[in-house]
Amino acid sequence: MKLYTFWRSNATYRVRVALNIKGLTAEKASIDLLMGDQFEADFQAVNPARAVPALVLDDGGPALFESMAIMEYLEEVHPRPPLLPSDPRSRARVRALAQIVVADAHLLGVPRVRKLLTEGFKFDETQLARWQHHWQNEAMTSLEGHLARDRETGRFCHGEAVTMADICLAGHVIAAQMLKVDLKPYPTVSRIAEECFAQDAFAREHLLKQPGAPGVPA
Amino acid sequence: MKLYTFWRSNATYRVRVALNIKGLTAEKASIDLLMGDQFEADFQAVNPARAVPALVLDDGGPALFESMAIMEYLEEVHPRPPLLPSDPRSRARVRALAQIVVADAHLLGVPRVRKLLTEGFKFDETQLARWQHHWQNEAMTSLEGHLARDRETGRFCHGEAVTMADICLAGHVIAAQMLKVDLKPYPTVSRIAEECFAQDAFAREHLLKQPGAPGVPA
Repeated sequence: MKLYTFWRSNATYRVRVALNIKGLTAEKASIDLLMGDQFEADFQAVNPARAVPALVLDDGGPALFESMAIMEYLEEVHPRPPLLPSDPRSRARVRALAQIVVADAHLLGVPRVRKLLTEGFKFDETQLARWQHHWQNEAMTSLEGHLARDRETGRFCHGEAVTMADICLAGHVIAAQMLKVDLKPYPTVSRIAEECFAQDAFAREHLLKQPGAPGVPA
Repeated sequence: MKLYTFWRSNATYRVRVALNIKGLTAEKASIDLLMGDQFEADFQAVNPARAVPALVLDDGGPALFESMAIMEYLEEVHPRPPLLPSDPRSRARVRALAQIVVADAHLLGVPRVRKLLTEGFKFDETQLARWQHHWQNEAMTSLEGHLARDRETGRFCHGEAVTMADICLAGHVIAAQMLKVDLKPYPTVSRIAEECFAQDAFAREHLLKQPGAPGVPA
């Protein structure tokens, strides 16, 4: 397999962690979203949505794309160890917690949105930081509200095993830490993130350890 | 079942269409996102993420939330007629097309984002329209790029049967039409949307036909 990735991309972080948990490996190709590599014709042929991750399977064919769709694929084809619980109601809870990050938060801080705000609408650094902190905190409030309320919350988002929800949560917390968001109001989120970061599958995929990250050779 | 919904919410539209296709009915309760009903304590107890849809099952327990998670739940518990193909690779394609709308587009036009832009950052109507059109077109370009390229595209996004991808695409096209986005550059998207709108399961859930929509009694 070949994974198109980028050090700063939280969406590719999710797929890299999922691959690690499943015991799978993929060749990596970096698409520098800050340099605009995603708009090159070669990459648009891989993913017309001009985004990473994209995962080319060994049998060829169009690349898989979108982090949640890729994680669901990995779960269906490589079910052990599972990234979803077994009963439908629990699976819905895990998927919904994941979607708080994927559908309700992450997009508001991606390069193309920051670029339109700063170049198209002339946001200065202070305004951009205010925008990003606002949405980080909104998503944290949503996650903490669910996790602190529900008895299904355990060592991880759902019981004692890592699920897709933890992968998405961990990436969101890394982004928050990079933005210096105060995490004290979100003790359940913070506790679960620390549980994740203590695991090798997560630790070695930390954004700031990836090739091309500040201080890390590309 | 009881579905918390709102006439203008594209995310609840998805769930209503999915329920229709599955032949299921749910009592409806309107949460007026423009009036801030989602921040009332009663509703925050239902969904701490302060968003619709939320679906309360007949056996009680915490409400399901997030449209994709609810559709996946309905698919697992009521598999006929299916909203996903049967093979993992096709399922990944359908989920990824759906996520273009759900994760890469929809959020940028929801009430809470529009509110921060207009109240927090003083966007005027022209700026807000420019913002919304930009992201509508970005998502349309991504969808059209995939759908026009892939041989799996048929009468619908994936072959001859409606899937989750079509439900998400149809809602995105309704939003684009309400914003008067020019759809001519997206012929495949437009064609598939028309196929969807011709079906009763979609037609009766059109946003502008819902209780509370302009000209429709609440």
